Amino acid sequence: MSTQPLNTWIQIPQNSDFSIYNIPFGVYSDDTVKHHVCSAIGDYIIDLFELERAGLLQVNREVFDKKYLNNFIKLGKSKTKEIRLKIQSILCDEKSVLKTDLVFQKKVLKKQSAVTMLMPVKIGDYTDFYSSVDHATNVGKMFRDPENALLPNWKHLPVGYHGRASSIQVSGHSFHRPKGQQKPADSEKPVFGPTKLLDFELETAFIIGKSTQMGESISTQKADEYIFGMVLFNDWSARDIQTWEYVPLGPFLAKNFASTLSPWVVTLDALEPFRTKGYEQIPQLLPYLQYSGNKNIDIKLEVLIKPENATETKVCESNYKYMYYTMEQQLAHHTINGCNVNVGDLMASGTISGPESREFGSMLELTWRGSKPLKLNDGSERKFINDGDTVILRGYCQTNNGIRVGFGECSSTVNPAKNNN
Amino acid sequence: MSTQPLNTWIQIPQNSDFSIYNIPFGVYSDDTVKHHVCSAIGDYIIDLFELERAGLLQVNREVFDKKYLNNFIKLGKSKTKEIRLKIQSILCDEKSVLKTDLVFQKKVLKKQSAVTMLMPVKIGDYTDFYSSVDHATNVGKMFRDPENALLPNWKHLPVGYHGRASSIQVSGHSFHRPKGQQKPADSEKPVFGPTKLLDFELETAFIIGKSTQMGESISTQKADEYIFGMVLFNDWSARDIQTWEYVPLGPFLAKNFASTLSPWVVTLDALEPFRTKGYEQIPQLLPYLQYSGNKNIDIKLEVLIKPENATETKVCESNYKYMYYTMEQQLAHHTINGCNVNVGDLMASGTISGPESREFGSMLELTWRGSKPLKLNDGSERKFINDGDTVILRGYCQTNNGIRVGFGECSSTVNPAKNNN
Repeated sequence: MSTQPLNTWIQIPQNSDFSIYNIPFGVYSDDTVKHHVCSAIGDYIIDLFELERAGLLQVNREVFDKKYLNNFIKLGKSKTKEIRLKIQSILCDEKSVLKTDLVFQKKVLKKQSAVTMLMPVKIGDYTDFYSSVDHATNVGKMFRDPENALLPNWKHLPVGYHGRASSIQVSGHSFHRPKGQQKPADSEKPVFGPTKLLDFELETAFIIGKSTQMGESISTQKADEYIFGMVLFNDWSARDIQTWEYVPLGPFLAKNFASTLSPWVVTLDALEPFRTKGYEQIPQLLPYLQYSGNKNIDIKLEVLIKPENATETKVCESNYKYMYYTMEQQLAHHTINGCNVNVGDLMASGTISGPESREFGSMLELTWRGSKPLKLNDGSERKFINDGDTVILRGYCQTNNGIRVGFGECSSTVNPAKNNN
Repeated sequence: MSTQPLNTWIQIPQNSDFSIYNIPFGVYSDDTVKHHVCSAIGDYIIDLFELERAGLLQVNREVFDKKYLNNFIKLGKSKTKEIRLKIQSILCDEKSVLKTDLVFQKKVLKKQSAVTMLMPVKIGDYTDFYSSVDHATNVGKMFRDPENALLPNWKHLPVGYHGRASSIQVSGHSFHRPKGQQKPADSEKPVFGPTKLLDFELETAFIIGKSTQMGESISTQKADEYIFGMVLFNDWSARDIQTWEYVPLGPFLAKNFASTLSPWVVTLDALEPFRTKGYEQIPQLLPYLQYSGNKNIDIKLEVLIKPENATETKVCESNYKYMYYTMEQQLAHHTINGCNVNVGDLMASGTISGPESREFGSMLELTWRGSKPLKLNDGSERKFINDGDTVILRGYCQTNNGIRVGFGECSSTVNPAKNNN
C-alpha cells in the first residue's frame, strides 16, 4: 500500500468499507432528492450535487443531477480522478465549510441507512466472462469429462458471452423464482415449472469508462484507461433450465430473469494499491492477450445466505485474485475484433471460485450439484436457494495495517414463482 | 389480402416496396434536418414532423423530432395505428393540403435518394433466435451428426441467445473485417488474424412495441400487442472465430463486430394481410408455446452480393414463412421466466433458410462450408465474403394482384481488416 496516509475529520466505524481511501460513486434518492450522484464515507453518503452547489468541486453540476453516473463518467478519467481527490481533501480539511457549516453539512452528509441507493449506471451492453480457472474446472468435472475438465479453448482466450441488460437490478431488490423448461434425466420430454435449482454466482464486474468506435481495439496496456471502476455482481442462474437450453448457443433464460449489482462503483484508482500478481498463464497466450505487471487484485469476497426470519450464514469466502484472466485481458479480447464499447457497459468476471471447497462461488460447486448440502446457522439445509432466501455478496480490500476499501453489500431476495402461466 | 383498395394521388413506381399499403416508419436526416421521424411512399420519404407542424396528425409533435422512433412507439399501438391510417388517408385525399400546397409538399415529401436514413430505434437489448429448421438442420449436418442434425432441445423450444447491441448499424455502412483467434484443424494452437470465413446471415428482426416489468410473461395470444414491426437484419458472422470460441457459452466475437439493420420498420399491421400457416409442430410443444391461427408471414427474401466495381448477383431466395417458430412463440419463450422487455429491443429470427439449396440463408450453407463455391455475374467465385463486397438483403410481401409491402434494402460493405494490432 503506497498511498499517503489520510486523516479525515469524519468518524468512521472500524471495518467500514467506505474509508477515506475509497470514495466510490453511486446515485441515491430520498424523500427530498429524486436522484443525485453521491459518494460515501463511513456511514454517510456525500451528496455531490449539493457539494458542487457550494462551488466545492468546480465542475458543471448538472452531471450530479442525473439518474445515472454515465454523464459523470463521460467527463473523463482525469476529471473524475480530480473530483475524487477533491472530495478526499475536503474530508481531511478541518477548516472545510463542510465541517464548520452544520446546516450545509446536513444537506450534504446523509446517513446511508436513510437513503435509497439506485442503479449506478445505465447499462448499454452487458457481457459475462468465465475467467475463474477453478470454477471452469469444477463445472467441467461435473458436466463433462473429469479428466479433461477445461475445454480446448479455455486457456487460450477469456471465454465470454452476452447477457441481458434489462433485468439487472441494484442491490436491495427481489425477484420471482423463474419458470421454464427442464428435462429430468428420467423423462423423455421436457417438463415446465419453477426452477428447482436456483443458484447465485459470486462475481465482480467492471464498468466501461470511455467509449470506442467500431473497428477500434483496446490493448491490455491501455485497458485501464477504459475501466472506470468495479462493482459486486450476482449472476443468478437456474441450473436445470440452463442444462436443457444451453447447447449450442449458450445460456439464455437460465440467466436473463435477474442479476444483481452493488450500488457503489469503486474506482480503479481506489483499488490500485491492492493489485497483486496474476496466474502464470501457460500455454503462452497470443500477443494481443499478453500483459505485464501486477494486474490481479486482492479483493476478499464473501457470500451469505439469510433465510426468511433467520440470521445469515456465510457460505463462501473467495477472492478476486483467483481470476485466471484479468479485466485488462477481458477487455482486450472483447475488442480485438473491433467490437465497440460504450460508457456504462458492464463486463462481469464469471463466477469467482478459489481452489478450496469453501472458496467455491456458487451452490452448484459448494454442494457439488446438490450431493453435499450446506448446513445453515438456523439448522436448515440448502442444496440450492430457497424461496424467501436473501443472498448477500460482500467484497473488500484490506492491508495489514487495517486500511480498507470495500464495496458494501450486493443483496437480493428470492420470491416464490408467479402463478400467471 | 382482405385490405380495402386504396388509391393515392402520389405516383408510385411499379414494384415499389413503399406502396400505400405499407406506410413504414423510420428516421432521416438531410442538409436541413438533423433527425425527423418519417414514413415512406413510393420514391419519397414523408417528414412526419412537418406534417404535424401543419396539424395534420394531431399528436404531440415532439415525438417526431427525435433521433429514434422509441418515443413514437411509446405512444402505444392504438395511437401509432391511428397515425398510420391518417397518413394513408392524407395520401389518398385529392383535396389534401399536402397535394394542393406545393410549398408545403416540398417540405414534407423528399426524394428518398436525397436523404440519409438513420438507425430507426435505440436498441436496449438484442436477442438472436435460431428458429429456421432448415438452417439448424444444415448446420447440424455440417458440424455435428448428419444423422441427428437437430439437437434434442430444438423442437421443444426456440433456441436463442443474447447479442451485442452496440455494433448494430443501419443499412449503408461498412465495417472492417474482424480479426481474432482461429484454430486450424492441422494446428496444435490457435492462430491470430483476419477471419477467412466471413459470412452473412439472412434474418429478419422484430422490434418491441410495449415494455414489461420483471416477472411478467407475454403469452403467444397477446404477443402481437408487444411487437411494433419488423426489419431486415444481417447478422454478420466469422465462421472460423465462431468454431473455436463458441463452446460452451455460445457465439461472442464471431458475431459482435457488426450487424446490419434495414432503416424502415414495417408495422405488424402492414404485414397482417400476408400471414400464412406455420409449420406443424411435432412433438407437441408445452402449453406456453402453443398458438392458433396463421402466424407465419409470406415475406419473400433475397440476398445479393455486389463485388467492388461490379454488378450484383442474387445468391439466395428464401422466405420468412419457412420459420419453424413464430415471433409470437419467440416472445412468449423469451419472457416465460419473467425476463422484461423494453420498447426498442430487437429480436432477430436467426438465419432463414428454406428447404432448397438456393434458399439457404448463409454462405456457409450455400457453398456447403466452402466446398461448392458460388459463381458471381462478374465471373469471380465466392466461398465466403471478400473485402470490398457489399451484401444486400431485400424483402417484400406481394399478392397475386400486385399489392406490395416491402422493406427496402439492408446493405453493408466489408472493408479490409485494420492493421492496428
